[in-house]
Amino acid sequence: MVEPGDWSHVTKVDPDKGMSEEKARRVAGTGTDAVVVGGTQGVTRDKVLSLLSALESGDVPVVIEPSNPASVVHTGNDLLVPTVLNAGTVDWVVGIQKEWMRIDDEIDWSRVFAEGYVVMNPDSAVGRLTDAKTDIAPEEAAAYATVADRFFDLPVVYVEYSGTFGDTEVVSAVSEAVEEATVFYGGGVDSYERAREAAEYADCVVVGDAAHDKGVEALRETVRGVQDARR
Amino acid sequence: MVEPGDWSHVTKVDPDKGMSEEKARRVAGTGTDAVVVGGTQGVTRDKVLSLLSALESGDVPVVIEPSNPASVVHTGNDLLVPTVLNAGTVDWVVGIQKEWMRIDDEIDWSRVFAEGYVVMNPDSAVGRLTDAKTDIAPEEAAAYATVADRFFDLPVVYVEYSGTFGDTEVVSAVSEAVEEATVFYGGGVDSYERAREAAEYADCVVVGDAAHDKGVEALRETVRGVQDARR
Repeated sequence: MVEPGDWSHVTKVDPDKGMSEEKARRVAGTGTDAVVVGGTQGVTRDKVLSLLSALESGDVPVVIEPSNPASVVHTGNDLLVPTVLNAGTVDWVVGIQKEWMRIDDEIDWSRVFAEGYVVMNPDSAVGRLTDAKTDIAPEEAAAYATVADRFFDLPVVYVEYSGTFGDTEVVSAVSEAVEEATVFYGGGVDSYERAREAAEYADCVVVGDAAHDKGVEALRETVRGVQDARR
Repeated sequence: MVEPGDWSHVTKVDPDKGMSEEKARRVAGTGTDAVVVGGTQGVTRDKVLSLLSALESGDVPVVIEPSNPASVVHTGNDLLVPTVLNAGTVDWVVGIQKEWMRIDDEIDWSRVFAEGYVVMNPDSAVGRLTDAKTDIAPEEAAAYATVADRFFDLPVVYVEYSGTFGDTEVVSAVSEAVEEATVFYGGGVDSYERAREAAEYADCVVVGDAAHDKGVEALRETVRGVQDARR
């Protein structure tokens, strides 16, 4: 059983990009608290299984964040399941989740952690896909976070700037509004400094692209940044 | 503190229709477990306050189900706050809730109970207002109910046929799918027989229009129907 509430640094790896076993082992050794298998585009069950197999050898929890019902695999891993609070259509708030529950009768709810996303970068893949309402003030982002935190009682509120470093006023407003959930921040964290800054506002910093594009040393630097912010 | 999980019969009264103090006292005396103040159209804060004042004299819990953020009153009553899982637009799933949380800084979360609605009558006021997807099979309604019950952990799942007696296959499928929440059923319950039948499938039967249109004796008959189903 994983506990997202205990994490302060998470590495997100994309099944569409894949990863060698050797690199997966080095990623696990960076000090990151968990590896999340998740991406927005081109995710298939086979790619997820192949990445999971590469990650097996590392000594760190591996969690799956499915992007669509068809890519859900039941491998004993815990699942982080998104709902996008500020999506433009119902599909990404409740639709794909309903579809998953309709077609999957193997769901182990003790392994499912719901994440309430507030997607803030309109140019990101997830922003375009979900038609997210990103032109909102910090207090409106915070109100979406409160829906996730208090009305839906979700364990995770996730401020997602995917691909760009976010507005710290928004992250800060969300963090102040959230009372129970763990606040994840993702987007543009590719260095010690960025990681350290993000960790000032969020409970947990998610590093995605950097792990693929900049290598394991850069990832290790982001872990250090988060650790130093926590001192 | 009220406990929707303990209720088996609830009377919903509409602020737009109002009620005399004398009638309110008689409604409270029918054996109904709670009176819910809620309606879809023409609800204002003044009408809610006036109805609450009439209901004060009865010896039964009075709960408010706000239909929009502008009609929320903080009177110490508990709040049942809807989200419509099968709404056609995001407004009724998360939008008005977000708006409420943005403008109201007096929310006492210990008094808020979220209700996950599955709206099934396309011709009802709520069906039209929320553009609900009502043309769905029982298992799809059940999947929406599971989103409310397990993914969002809502205390109440509400199958709403408002104005017409529902398809018992749908209510039955929802009841079988729901594991934690209390299943409310509403719609067309205006007699002993209807109440008794609805209570076979739902944990709690909601009687609305009958209390206004058919009088207190008819309401008492619905209480008897539910009680007999429970024997």
